[in-house]
Amino acid sequence: MTYCVGMLVREGLIALADTRTNAGVDHIATVTKLHVWEEPGERVLILMTAGNLAITQSVVNLLDEGGASGEGTTLMNVPTMFEAARLVGAAVREIHRRDADDLNRQGIDFSASFLLGGQIAGRRLRLFMVYAAGNFIEATPETPYLQIGETKYGKPIIDRVLSFETGLRQALKCALLSMDSTLKSNISAGLPLDLAIYPRDALKLGLQRRITEDDGYFHGLRKTWRDGLAAAVEAIPDPDWTW
Amino acid sequence: MTYCVGMLVREGLIALADTRTNAGVDHIATVTKLHVWEEPGERVLILMTAGNLAITQSVVNLLDEGGASGEGTTLMNVPTMFEAARLVGAAVREIHRRDADDLNRQGIDFSASFLLGGQIAGRRLRLFMVYAAGNFIEATPETPYLQIGETKYGKPIIDRVLSFETGLRQALKCALLSMDSTLKSNISAGLPLDLAIYPRDALKLGLQRRITEDDGYFHGLRKTWRDGLAAAVEAIPDPDWTW
Repeated sequence: MTYCVGMLVREGLIALADTRTNAGVDHIATVTKLHVWEEPGERVLILMTAGNLAITQSVVNLLDEGGASGEGTTLMNVPTMFEAARLVGAAVREIHRRDADDLNRQGIDFSASFLLGGQIAGRRLRLFMVYAAGNFIEATPETPYLQIGETKYGKPIIDRVLSFETGLRQALKCALLSMDSTLKSNISAGLPLDLAIYPRDALKLGLQRRITEDDGYFHGLRKTWRDGLAAAVEAIPDPDWTW
Repeated sequence: MTYCVGMLVREGLIALADTRTNAGVDHIATVTKLHVWEEPGERVLILMTAGNLAITQSVVNLLDEGGASGEGTTLMNVPTMFEAARLVGAAVREIHRRDADDLNRQGIDFSASFLLGGQIAGRRLRLFMVYAAGNFIEATPETPYLQIGETKYGKPIIDRVLSFETGLRQALKCALLSMDSTLKSNISAGLPLDLAIYPRDALKLGLQRRITEDDGYFHGLRKTWRDGLAAAVEAIPDPDWTW
């Protein structure tokens, strides 16, 4: 599995993905699931992927090579974010057309999902989740985040902390804590992490960073969080129930 | 769905279950999923159930009426906790024999799982998880808890807080926080909650309590926790990454 989270707040966009891929517990490897298409001053698009790696890598290749729509349209020339989400949907449908029957014959589900966030000059910052069927939904101010992969472990902390008005640095910490919860409780997501930060209207990527096991900040965050959680539990008074 | 958690620590056993049942979003009701068999001084057994309600209620009825083993054995006369876990397994196998084919013909999975904890005089306190196939595993000091139902939301807080040496009151708070995370992020688990506490070697139930929406302690715990989490996030320094 995988864990990827995208957060769209007033100040901008956070994208965070783990890098573990596995085909059974015997085949574990590190792959990038966070891809960036950027032309500074004109567009920044960030795509994160979950699901069957052969499918998601094929989708990324189609998006790069313009084979999704049959007209040479790529994420570098598509005119709007809505059209970009449709293009990702078209790419996954094309791979479904090519591969799904053969996968089914081998008893393998056609599993793939995508988070696509970004902004194109003159238009607003948007964040979409594209399903395996090629359809998609969009993050809204009421629910300013989307997740794919192993989503449940990391959801409670986001539900407690994040709103559209949360600052970008606070949202970043929330994303890292959500990932920390997932890493702690599920071995199918793993370090290193890929992080991208896009400040709204910047039209260039603010930060792209690989967070490794040795990353001092992430290491400190995990320790501070562990201690803070323990203190928060400690602060809860005992019930006066007797037994 | 459902969320039930059992914790077996040095001081005793915590059992906590929600009460929501649903057959689609149109059919939501409150049912007890936590059942107690007790003869003070001799035995206390606590069973929690998840899965298809028709299956789990049938299993509980078989356990009450002695129809699981064909020899009149019930949870009130089975000699050991290991035999009690086998009896629950036998009951679910019997219901599988009766119902699974008809369920399959309607496209319904045979889903059921159980947490069985308790102690019988002269023997030690144990906690088991029984699967739909009737086989079972046991909690150990290294991993002193078991969950059934919607388990993922509430797992990170337990993984951070609970060990076998955690006191019973602290474990109780941890169980309630784990439930709170699940309630917050998933509508398929809901209030009220059923709680049972068994102090090791007491051979009588320490506490059995239904926690409703109006429960002052649980209400306060949720608020203290929300504030404590926010403070714990706040306490994490910002990264010195620039963008």
